[in-house]
Amino acid sequence: MDQFVLTEAVARPYHSNMSVKPDRTEAVVLVTCPDRPGIVARVTSSLDQVGANILDASQHTDVEGSMFLQRLHVSWPDESPEPESVHDVLTELGEELDLSWRIRWGHAPRHVAIFVSKMDHCLHDLLLLRRDGELNCRIPLVISNHPDLEETANQFNIPFHHVPVDSSGDPEAESRQLALLEAHDIDLVVLARYMRVLSPDFINRYQDRIINIHHSFLPAFAGGRPYHQAHRKGVKLIGATAHYATPELDEGPIIEQGVIRVSHRDSVQDMVRKGRDIERTVLARAVRWHLEDRIVVHGNRAVVFD
Amino acid sequence: MDQFVLTEAVARPYHSNMSVKPDRTEAVVLVTCPDRPGIVARVTSSLDQVGANILDASQHTDVEGSMFLQRLHVSWPDESPEPESVHDVLTELGEELDLSWRIRWGHAPRHVAIFVSKMDHCLHDLLLLRRDGELNCRIPLVISNHPDLEETANQFNIPFHHVPVDSSGDPEAESRQLALLEAHDIDLVVLARYMRVLSPDFINRYQDRIINIHHSFLPAFAGGRPYHQAHRKGVKLIGATAHYATPELDEGPIIEQGVIRVSHRDSVQDMVRKGRDIERTVLARAVRWHLEDRIVVHGNRAVVFD
Amino acid sequence: MDQFVLTEAVARPYHSNMSVKPDRTEAVVLVTCPDRPGIVARVTSSLDQVGANILDASQHTDVEGSMFLQRLHVSWPDESPEPESVHDVLTELGEELDLSWRIRWGHAPRHVAIFVSKMDHCLHDLLLLRRDGELNCRIPLVISNHPDLEETANQFNIPFHHVPVDSSGDPEAESRQLALLEAHDIDLVVLARYMRVLSPDFINRYQDRIINIHHSFLPAFAGGRPYHQAHRKGVKLIGATAHYATPELDEGPIIEQGVIRVSHRDSVQDMVRKGRDIERTVLARAVRWHLEDRIVVHGNRAVVFD
Amino acid sequence: MDQFVLTEAVARPYHSNMSVKPDRTEAVVLVTCPDRPGIVARVTSSLDQVGANILDASQHTDVEGSMFLQRLHVSWPDESPEPESVHDVLTELGEELDLSWRIRWGHAPRHVAIFVSKMDHCLHDLLLLRRDGELNCRIPLVISNHPDLEETANQFNIPFHHVPVDSSGDPEAESRQLALLEAHDIDLVVLARYMRVLSPDFINRYQDRIINIHHSFLPAFAGGRPYHQAHRKGVKLIGATAHYATPELDEGPIIEQGVIRVSHRDSVQDMVRKGRDIERTVLARAVRWHLEDRIVVHGNRAVVFD
Repeated sequence: MDQFVLTEAVARPYHSNMSVKPDRTEAVVLVTCPDRPGIVARVTSSLDQVGANILDASQHTDVEGSMFLQRLHVSWPDESPEPESVHDVLTELGEELDLSWRIRWGHAPRHVAIFVSKMDHCLHDLLLLRRDGELNCRIPLVISNHPDLEETANQFNIPFHHVPVDSSGDPEAESRQLALLEAHDIDLVVLARYMRVLSPDFINRYQDRIINIHHSFLPAFAGGRPYHQAHRKGVKLIGATAHYATPELDEGPIIEQGVIRVSHRDSVQDMVRKGRDIERTVLARAVRWHLEDRIVVHGNRAVVFD
Repeated sequence: MDQFVLTEAVARPYHSNMSVKPDRTEAVVLVTCPDRPGIVARVTSSLDQVGANILDASQHTDVEGSMFLQRLHVSWPDESPEPESVHDVLTELGEELDLSWRIRWGHAPRHVAIFVSKMDHCLHDLLLLRRDGELNCRIPLVISNHPDLEETANQFNIPFHHVPVDSSGDPEAESRQLALLEAHDIDLVVLARYMRVLSPDFINRYQDRIINIHHSFLPAFAGGRPYHQAHRKGVKLIGATAHYATPELDEGPIIEQGVIRVSHRDSVQDMVRKGRDIERTVLARAVRWHLEDRIVVHGNRAVVFD
Repeated sequence: MDQFVLTEAVARPYHSNMSVKPDRTEAVVLVTCPDRPGIVARVTSSLDQVGANILDASQHTDVEGSMFLQRLHVSWPDESPEPESVHDVLTELGEELDLSWRIRWGHAPRHVAIFVSKMDHCLHDLLLLRRDGELNCRIPLVISNHPDLEETANQFNIPFHHVPVDSSGDPEAESRQLALLEAHDIDLVVLARYMRVLSPDFINRYQDRIINIHHSFLPAFAGGRPYHQAHRKGVKLIGATAHYATPELDEGPIIEQGVIRVSHRDSVQDMVRKGRDIERTVLARAVRWHLEDRIVVHGNRAVVFD
Repeated sequence: MDQFVLTEAVARPYHSNMSVKPDRTEAVVLVTCPDRPGIVARVTSSLDQVGANILDASQHTDVEGSMFLQRLHVSWPDESPEPESVHDVLTELGEELDLSWRIRWGHAPRHVAIFVSKMDHCLHDLLLLRRDGELNCRIPLVISNHPDLEETANQFNIPFHHVPVDSSGDPEAESRQLALLEAHDIDLVVLARYMRVLSPDFINRYQDRIINIHHSFLPAFAGGRPYHQAHRKGVKLIGATAHYATPELDEGPIIEQGVIRVSHRDSVQDMVRKGRDIERTVLARAVRWHLEDRIVVHGNRAVVFD
């Protein structure tokens, strides 16, 4: 699976689900294509041609895969452009250079669903960041396999849906969950310490659009009870990993990781407590980068333009 | 294997191989015994009884194993004690409390052999620290399966022994290595990026006295070419792990770990370069703690009294 | 002012304000005295004498000041001791060794008042930790010079008091604040991004019992708008510092510090956002250590037995 | 002094002092100009016009100063360009956009002089990195006010010059130092724990070309004996700062900073030891970035394109 995943933009423009008129004076453009000389000049002059000013451009050339990836943050200083004309010029470029592209128009918040179980530290942090304007998204619902966190969601005026799940991959529960996601036109699912495993079918529907936080420094301690595993092993640092979910458990592209020191004095319970801070920080960072279109998945790796 | 490894002290007092008269006004005492009320008071009053002043005492109770571990740094402010009287009081305590103990008299430097292959960043660092008095040890020899680092060893006036090794566990080579270790009365073997695997027999002879630096954040990426593994996986932090060698490769008790950030921009070669700083720092710290008798191995975990 | 501050225990036993019966099977004892041989043995055997089992003992000798500091976590495995007998043995020891001591009986939560202004990330974190049992205290009230955070306090069922403050040190406002603190028998005041300066008189009443979070890596960028100062200076790391308040602004004993990387790409606003995580983590750690009696103030330094 | 310092390129092309023929198939171009729409497209198409392929382009817009800064790593995949034609197109661009530029042709190593006093950990690290090809430079000489490190320099076959210095700013000593720098056509001076202060006149001659390592987290603890200051203050983290020297001591643009944890247990001597690792790592990183033309000084801040 060594190819780029930018097909979403073609199939379904990011801004299609916006009830508000998107701000067309700013946009993020992501492009990928086989590497060759002259791409940067070609892309920038094409955008210049439709009046775009390039505020920031980052690129990465994957030497092994010979692929070129670029993120451009552009604005139109004078007047809003016609989206069609911008799309046309990108389409033309795409044909010429065998280039995939996607564009997101400014201030068009995506719809995010948060899945939780009983622990609320990650949920709380995401809701606070959203409230403070640090996460550019809407959160139309929280879904949980337990009723415990309803009050937390309500404190932030977010509808809470209790969907009991018999066991990981429970098809009836997943049907209910999927129906909720579709009803709210969800773009991104965040598993904020959700303790059930989703079925491959569910995950494939939201490829590269499900972010999970795993409470270990992956690939160490994949699977269940990672702090217990870490304690048994006697590691001197514990960590957390935010990654896109793939059908292979805890194997998806890593977006962000963090660690904190522990010692022999720390019990499993101490590790759980210390891990809290890392988990929520790492998850919040990954979600923010996704919402700012800073991530391109390439093979099994996540390129983050930070 | 859930028991304490303090037998070395009984079989062979740490200070027996010293040609210099040990400084008997300071010592480090390590004790372990089944946990029960009153141990701290019993140990400290026994030491008080033979004139010892306790400069520093740290202890740890392993709740699962119900074991008590203590490190005491003691001094005799007035005059040097008779070592026999100190040993007697500890032996008596040992019988009473089912307690294992070992004592190291102050400023009695241990003999350390450093094993290397071709990379010298860890070797350099250890030799500089030794020269500056930061590592309390003698380094009578450097052993390598390649001739490359002879000059580095010589710059620091350390004899260099080139012992070619056909493949990991080569019995003839190991015989030569062991003969060298015995000839120099070696207490500690440091594998400073030595790229051969030692045989279980070799390792068992120096149980808990071989420190290896592995260039990954174990248990992730055990085995060969860990930076290549880390690059392929797309992790966002790389690390290094200093651990005691056991017959199971890269599975021994972890003494210290460190990490450094990487990104998609870093090639394997960049990771190698960034890892250098972590490897040498983590290894140097582990060696220093060992030489200061701050480590007690308990089951498969290393308790570090830092 | 180079002397130890353990007088609080004498003037007012920590557990005096508890309406619940304290758990007398566990206690933390802090002692300080001029350094001399034999102290550890004397203290431990005195505690042994009244039936105490020493779970954990840490000590520190301040070489320059020739002072000895020790923290002992003790328990009575069989039955609760008479507090008076424990106090008697410590008092006797105090007279003999010129030793100051204080004791806190287990599970006797202190009363904490949190002062805030408009930002709630630190407040939120403290209230969540308190709710989850990570902070062993009661929080009878939140005091603010602004009405904004009333709802946050109420979500956690904490009474909120809006005390407007004309300018830093406003005597009328401080009278009202002090009356509230006294009415609730407050042991610790936490300034969780409270943006007014307290008068020296206020601070002296709660010496070593007011913890402030300053949003810079002190002593760099003391005073107002530290992130603006940091941005102007072009530092590559920003930080946060939890310290005891003293009459000299931002000069009190440092309890804990943390940092996070920034670059030229970060605006002041980005620094504010990144600093959030550090501020709340550093403050929460400092408050927890205080509540676990892990901190002894010595001169202008805070010794933390972690 | 809020303007860009790119004048060096005009006055004296970086590659003028190369005895080897520079590799003209790769170059780094740094440009700065007042911000306005369309710059990125203009610069990239101008370079495209002379056959350059853009491998990597980073830019930064300083919002306050309304300045645009860009670093471009370019190559000519087919054949070496005429440097004159590249310079012409950049000069033309410069006039049109009020743009300053400098270009460094690939693999043209700069000449670096290292100043030391008695400590060698930073010197050792730079010499090892240079030897291993991690620093693209020549080091024609080491200059010291003490004779101690002659042997270290000689081990790496670097000529060592002992220039005694009566006191900071000693004009005779500086004349000798400057003569040596000129004789070896030095581009960069690295103060690797050099314990004398250079005169403003000396510093101005090498503006933005003298890198100093200060052993504290600036702006905290500027001036002498920073570890003593840090110990007295009781900070919980110590640090190191690499910066360009300016006539105001320890006030120049900060290139890189690092920190490490300390506690009350650490004496000044422990801090010195722990600081070693940070100092050498931070300094080596700053020198590498300078040699890779990743740094642009803007006002009193160093923009690092990493």
